[in-house]
Amino acid sequence: MKIAVLPGDGIGTEIIAEAVKVLKVLDLPLEMETAPVGGAAYEAAGHPLPEATLKLAQQADAVLFGAVGDWKYDKLERALRPEQAILGLRKALGLFANFRPAICYEQLTHASSLKPELVAGLDILIIRELTGDIYFGQPRGRRTAVDGHFPGSEEAFDTMRYSRPEIERIAHVAFQAARLRNRKVTSVDKANVLETFQFWKDVVTEVHAQYPDVELEHMYVDNAAMQLVKAPKKFDVVVTGNMFGDILSDEAAMLTGSIGMLPSASLDKNNKGLYEPSHGSAPDIAGKGIANPLATILSAAMMLKFSLHQPEAAARIEQAVQAVLAQGLRTADIWSEGTQKVSTREMGDAVVAAV
Amino acid sequence: MKIAVLPGDGIGTEIIAEAVKVLKVLDLPLEMETAPVGGAAYEAAGHPLPEATLKLAQQADAVLFGAVGDWKYDKLERALRPEQAILGLRKALGLFANFRPAICYEQLTHASSLKPELVAGLDILIIRELTGDIYFGQPRGRRTAVDGHFPGSEEAFDTMRYSRPEIERIAHVAFQAARLRNRKVTSVDKANVLETFQFWKDVVTEVHAQYPDVELEHMYVDNAAMQLVKAPKKFDVVVTGNMFGDILSDEAAMLTGSIGMLPSASLDKNNKGLYEPSHGSAPDIAGKGIANPLATILSAAMMLKFSLHQPEAAARIEQAVQAVLAQGLRTADIWSEGTQKVSTREMGDAVVAAV
Ligand SMILES: CC(C)[C@H](C(=O)O)[C@@H](O)C(=O)O
Ligand SMILES: CC(C)[C@H](C(=O)O)[C@@H](O)C(=O)O
Repeated sequence: MKIAVLPGDGIGTEIIAEAVKVLKVLDLPLEMETAPVGGAAYEAAGHPLPEATLKLAQQADAVLFGAVGDWKYDKLERALRPEQAILGLRKALGLFANFRPAICYEQLTHASSLKPELVAGLDILIIRELTGDIYFGQPRGRRTAVDGHFPGSEEAFDTMRYSRPEIERIAHVAFQAARLRNRKVTSVDKANVLETFQFWKDVVTEVHAQYPDVELEHMYVDNAAMQLVKAPKKFDVVVTGNMFGDILSDEAAMLTGSIGMLPSASLDKNNKGLYEPSHGSAPDIAGKGIANPLATILSAAMMLKFSLHQPEAAARIEQAVQAVLAQGLRTADIWSEGTQKVSTREMGDAVVAAV
Repeated sequence: MKIAVLPGDGIGTEIIAEAVKVLKVLDLPLEMETAPVGGAAYEAAGHPLPEATLKLAQQADAVLFGAVGDWKYDKLERALRPEQAILGLRKALGLFANFRPAICYEQLTHASSLKPELVAGLDILIIRELTGDIYFGQPRGRRTAVDGHFPGSEEAFDTMRYSRPEIERIAHVAFQAARLRNRKVTSVDKANVLETFQFWKDVVTEVHAQYPDVELEHMYVDNAAMQLVKAPKKFDVVVTGNMFGDILSDEAAMLTGSIGMLPSASLDKNNKGLYEPSHGSAPDIAGKGIANPLATILSAAMMLKFSLHQPEAAARIEQAVQAVLAQGLRTADIWSEGTQKVSTREMGDAVVAAV
């Protein structure tokens, strides 16, 4: 089983190193090859997603990804900025289904901004469509406006779009995921304003006919942003488009108070996937050895489960993470009075020991 | 001074009645005329925004709006649904600047989902552009895809767009508002993905050169959705586009725990405006006499301040609202142990008495 390891920028190298360490003690036939991506790849090869990195990702059975981005690349032209690497990988690999669990760990409930009773036991799964919508729709660019409020003035524009098969396949993913959970799907749209999301709502409703055992609820995106704050536990599976999913999955992750713990998976139609922590590259704390590697370690567990069909190995990692939390070990981001503050490496070592 | 009063649907009639009552005791030369809007107008005249209602709104100095919408109109074709009334009014009246304060009232801090220390004293102002973006961009509709992932399949699409003057005018509004507050503007974009919002960021930065006394920060929308949860008090003025503003202003309102208290104003370039509560029509509690009229009453105060140039009258209403809260009067949505539960009408009466 071949894994492409792409550490990226900022804390990426540090957190990936710990996940690799954990994978290595599992005694599985894993072949891991590392390549630069993002700003690191721009420095090394002049492009955030060099040919060689893309090829490695394409040939691997799964991709383990750290994080990309740093303020210092802000002045680069868009096509060369680190984020283009992750957008390019999603598109080139056809990773249309993004799984972002928002889980509140029992021991970390107090770390949430929300009152404990609202988040204790929280376990939602946000499924975000990842290769369509306004992220990739053409045409886009700048031009002279021919109509609107100020014809003749300079304007910029983008195209939001979804085709029927794109909506169908992500809806199937959501309903199937719900069958393994609490059998409830909330489809988030803005059908009252957008043609794209009226169509989204219609198609999701059609697909739902094949899943009579799953409850389907429709919710406007503005209301979803509110309900996540008001009563997050009312959700089970949330399915939405690329743009709304970007916003809501981050909001939901932050609600748990422990975004440093949350993994993510982005899958293609054959369950080949890219796995990365839900948090970013955090350039402000890079190199200090204080980043939390657990989201990346849990992403490696998701990889074992979804793409490499090693559910037992995945469970071993997940149990090891529970164990280190139970031991009271905490990186700075989740530390609180009465627990033991450890470094990135110490946390990785503890997980290795627990595995 | 002529006010168009548009109660609308659901709890709209009940809450508007209380606001009108408060306006009437002010002893100002206010001429108020009522007209149906939304579902009520569809029932009465076959259209959510009848000619006569639009004309009344156009001729008035300000519009006091209740709320529109009810599940029972969900099956109507889009053009006849209640929401079209509010979109139509915004467009026809050129109401491009939406002010949505998110304030946490001292006595209601406990009602927030967030821990009290995170929201106590919260006072942010979200300024949402309201007549552009993907809400109104053309072309939009359904068609057969000619490219993308599934050429030949049915697709739906919308156009996001902003022109330079549209961005400039809302940026000026935001910087000027910040001058009356804590002199900090957070411009929310998605410049790392969207052409429209790279342009937005560029133009806001240019306009900022005229306001060296105001601090400008740029933030991606996904990060803004997180920071609102993590540390809402770090914001002062937030300025963003129509779509992102829809989502973030609702998220911010819900964070305060007292959305039933939050007014809003939507202004044109001459400060003529439409004033409405931040909450919706709540058809589930309509007719029960339990809705909170304070957001509407405070919207009337904003109207007196912004459009009718009666700052003293506005202050009297605001002080009266503070007084009734201090008296311990609460409608059901903000009620808690130790306070006195009152009806919509009793709350309105108490404000009238305090004025
Ligand atoms: C870096 C950026 C392009 C990306 C996105 O918007 O998808 C990120 O926010 C994410 O959610 O993975
Ligand atoms: C009803 C709907 C069209 C409207 C919007 O999206 O603008 C509402 O959500 C709002 O924020 O006023």
